[in-house]
Amino acid sequence: MRNTAIIRIHCPDQRGIVAKVTDFIHRHNGNVLALDQHTDQGEKRFFMRVEWDLDGFSLSVDEIKETFKAEIATPMSMIWSLKLSDQISRMALFVSRASHCLFDLLARHQAGELKVEIPLIVSNHKDLEKVANQFGIPFHHLPVTKETKEQVEAEQNRLLEAYAIDFIVLARYMQILSSDFIERYPNRIINIHHSFLPAFAGAKPYHAAHSRGVKIIGATGHYVTSELDAGPIIDQDTIRISHHDSVESLVQKGKDIEKLVLSRAVRAHVDRKTLVYKNKTIIFA
Amino acid sequence: MRNTAIIRIHCPDQRGIVAKVTDFIHRHNGNVLALDQHTDQGEKRFFMRVEWDLDGFSLSVDEIKETFKAEIATPMSMIWSLKLSDQISRMALFVSRASHCLFDLLARHQAGELKVEIPLIVSNHKDLEKVANQFGIPFHHLPVTKETKEQVEAEQNRLLEAYAIDFIVLARYMQILSSDFIERYPNRIINIHHSFLPAFAGAKPYHAAHSRGVKIIGATGHYVTSELDAGPIIDQDTIRISHHDSVESLVQKGKDIEKLVLSRAVRAHVDRKTLVYKNKTIIFA
Amino acid sequence: MRNTAIIRIHCPDQRGIVAKVTDFIHRHNGNVLALDQHTDQGEKRFFMRVEWDLDGFSLSVDEIKETFKAEIATPMSMIWSLKLSDQISRMALFVSRASHCLFDLLARHQAGELKVEIPLIVSNHKDLEKVANQFGIPFHHLPVTKETKEQVEAEQNRLLEAYAIDFIVLARYMQILSSDFIERYPNRIINIHHSFLPAFAGAKPYHAAHSRGVKIIGATGHYVTSELDAGPIIDQDTIRISHHDSVESLVQKGKDIEKLVLSRAVRAHVDRKTLVYKNKTIIFA
Amino acid sequence: MRNTAIIRIHCPDQRGIVAKVTDFIHRHNGNVLALDQHTDQGEKRFFMRVEWDLDGFSLSVDEIKETFKAEIATPMSMIWSLKLSDQISRMALFVSRASHCLFDLLARHQAGELKVEIPLIVSNHKDLEKVANQFGIPFHHLPVTKETKEQVEAEQNRLLEAYAIDFIVLARYMQILSSDFIERYPNRIINIHHSFLPAFAGAKPYHAAHSRGVKIIGATGHYVTSELDAGPIIDQDTIRISHHDSVESLVQKGKDIEKLVLSRAVRAHVDRKTLVYKNKTIIFA
Repeated sequence: MRNTAIIRIHCPDQRGIVAKVTDFIHRHNGNVLALDQHTDQGEKRFFMRVEWDLDGFSLSVDEIKETFKAEIATPMSMIWSLKLSDQISRMALFVSRASHCLFDLLARHQAGELKVEIPLIVSNHKDLEKVANQFGIPFHHLPVTKETKEQVEAEQNRLLEAYAIDFIVLARYMQILSSDFIERYPNRIINIHHSFLPAFAGAKPYHAAHSRGVKIIGATGHYVTSELDAGPIIDQDTIRISHHDSVESLVQKGKDIEKLVLSRAVRAHVDRKTLVYKNKTIIFA
Repeated sequence: MRNTAIIRIHCPDQRGIVAKVTDFIHRHNGNVLALDQHTDQGEKRFFMRVEWDLDGFSLSVDEIKETFKAEIATPMSMIWSLKLSDQISRMALFVSRASHCLFDLLARHQAGELKVEIPLIVSNHKDLEKVANQFGIPFHHLPVTKETKEQVEAEQNRLLEAYAIDFIVLARYMQILSSDFIERYPNRIINIHHSFLPAFAGAKPYHAAHSRGVKIIGATGHYVTSELDAGPIIDQDTIRISHHDSVESLVQKGKDIEKLVLSRAVRAHVDRKTLVYKNKTIIFA
Repeated sequence: MRNTAIIRIHCPDQRGIVAKVTDFIHRHNGNVLALDQHTDQGEKRFFMRVEWDLDGFSLSVDEIKETFKAEIATPMSMIWSLKLSDQISRMALFVSRASHCLFDLLARHQAGELKVEIPLIVSNHKDLEKVANQFGIPFHHLPVTKETKEQVEAEQNRLLEAYAIDFIVLARYMQILSSDFIERYPNRIINIHHSFLPAFAGAKPYHAAHSRGVKIIGATGHYVTSELDAGPIIDQDTIRISHHDSVESLVQKGKDIEKLVLSRAVRAHVDRKTLVYKNKTIIFA
Repeated sequence: MRNTAIIRIHCPDQRGIVAKVTDFIHRHNGNVLALDQHTDQGEKRFFMRVEWDLDGFSLSVDEIKETFKAEIATPMSMIWSLKLSDQISRMALFVSRASHCLFDLLARHQAGELKVEIPLIVSNHKDLEKVANQFGIPFHHLPVTKETKEQVEAEQNRLLEAYAIDFIVLARYMQILSSDFIERYPNRIINIHHSFLPAFAGAKPYHAAHSRGVKIIGATGHYVTSELDAGPIIDQDTIRISHHDSVESLVQKGKDIEKLVLSRAVRAHVDRKTLVYKNKTIIFA
């Protein structure tokens, strides 16, 4: 695995952005491996992700940060970030009682499909402790009631800091997090909602889908914001159903699509292919 | 093409329904060509569609109606209907300015894919008169304003009766029909809504989808009821989009799926494969 | 969970089959829960699956077998089988090195999604022994070479009999079974082929798909017959790819669809919803 | 509609390509509207499409050609082409008896969805003359037999030249073109094959699909090469079928996907988003 640098940018649209960024990489002896850009004509905003090989690159990481900032980012009013492919993200899993998303993420992790570290699993129920044990991941049982929610979130925050967690995946956690909690992890909490948002936001979406008689159900992977089920969408998918499906079979069929969409959303985040602007995502190729 | 009879039924769930119906057909020398049934366990309601060959059947159509009613339908408290495959439905098309659904339905009709008669096209704009002429279908231009709506609907009703129309397809008609009008055609007005309902009900769904940043858009073919965009869904489909798509390209991509879903919904209706119960549809195989 | 009886039938098409079968159930005080039938007009062959509640049914299982055979099956030249929902199938898993299908099936089993017993896992490599241990399933390492194949199959057969296995799932087993072995388990060995058959049959389908430049890849769940990759297809699915995908990323994306299709094929088999006739399947609703 | 320039490039992978191309555009006062690039790591080959606004650009079209060639294309061993968005392609349609693809393309053209001119329709049968007349496109009936094929192709070539045709769409033409004919239009003949290639290449793919018992069928839009059904694939799509589908219903369902895939393939070609290398396509965003 070669070590690469990834820069994600957004800035007001203006002439010469790609030329300047690629010239910067070229001048310092870098080889572009992937480049994807997008201009939102309505917002007059430019978005870009570029990844290049660090082998033979003439600048150190600190020098990249300084030089890129001084020469390009500041003059062009860029919001930007630099990541290195050898920085492995540390992911916390929040779960409740349903095992399908947890099994899927842990199996992918164990098989080497998902390049993250998983230092801990947090749950408000004990049901999935066995699964955590099967995969050898520390399990923290933190039951939540209306009364204890604030203090549980404080404990969760303590754990997340102690384990130096980069981002959180709500793998069917089924609890609403406080705004305070969410704001500590902007665009770093990923949730799977078990419907095709914005259809059937809120609780019990499969009951609502059954009641409305839809012919397709879906799932939505999104970043969590303080407005419930309204954060930037990372990925969605749908499957066809019919009048034969009871609520129970919708739940069953929905699980397959929930775990698929959640794993794709997590992968996009881990590969630094997501960029959020004004509550919408750019997902780079 | 052989001539067949189609009976659609729903009734309280009870023992022996399939046995009695199929015995009735068998006793009178009929051969079942297709049979599909469904029990809604929650509603304790039974649904069935059966189609049999009339060649050699020992009862006339009137006798079928009488005998079936007396022996089976009434004792089992059935809501039921009998259709013959050689009864060709008469379909009215209501359009406005967008041509894609109109072209698609007329091309299918001309190619023999859609077994209906199309005696007239009604529109509130003149834009599609040329298309009607290309396909040789009478075009009625009835512009609608708030003030004239009542009187226009009266004229539409007059035309529908004069042409002995069985059902109406709103092929992107873009006008809201009055409850009075709708109630004359219960489960006989089919609309294509250009979103994956219930997401983005109402006007300008592609603008709403773009603004929300969804990754999939859809279309919904449904029967029209007096509650806007809330009628029984016949068919839906979805396609993947991305941040590259502007509102204009959503509209463009959406057209492909709108015309596909609408044609499938119309075909299901024409083939007598739909059954509505409590604002939901059973779509038989 | 109520106890139900499931009869699957195929026979020459003839009048009155549904009437006679449903009358049989009705006469003996059974309540039909699901009925699906199909007539292949080309083959003039009739197929049917019917499931009814055994609660209150007036015949014992042995009496069903005798009476149904004498009164209906023999006179109508039926090939048929009777299964009871409380007969839990015993499934053997054959695996090699790739873990994704194994993880998926074991996770579903542990979560109660898959109503089978899994008495053993057989593998020609030791790689997945750890996974078997995580889920507490006995693992049998039986390495295969050209020289030992016959003797390994003898040992496999011994194990399958010792554990009273009903059917075998090749969860990416990657070994070709002998005709002798296959013929012991007609329509009872399920394989997942990692392509959209019949495209790219044989080894290395992702390499072949990449080389041909297809825009969609797929997976196929099928019963194994002695002709390689040519057995009756149970389920298939596809996903969109692009020129960005290397062979490695095809393999990665393919895994998601392989495990999904395999699980659906296994579920169809376990729910007694499959019927094979002339190398094709009927999959009942 | 602004006037834009589109350059498509492929060349050996080397450092600084994007930098040099975008610097060229930037130096001459161009504003990049879209840029998509891809590196095939296996082939060590670089592919790129860039589109920029010509408004205010300091070079004329001839100067672009000269300067880009001298400064960039030749030194970097590029295969490249320049197109202007105001060059409207001239498309010939070859058809036979099936009308669905013809109707779809003509309806899109009339509705302004497809930015091409269609000077003529060529057919070996008279069936679709009526459709050509409905849309006001000249129709040339050129029946083909084994004996007359060479002379018919000569006449077709004469027409294509007389009408200054840029590319040909085989909208279910059902005749095999000679290598001589094909080689005059490299990557400029688009065919719709009514199966998911490479499955079921050759004649009667729906019969083959029915016989094999697949659960999904597809369609493939591809450039025609002298090897039958083996040219570079532009787009594909699939739909789910079942044992209920006869050959006739496969044909019917297949039509919907054929016309959708063909229209997308034509659009990609018209928008200059395709690039062929070694019998595979790059489809730019």
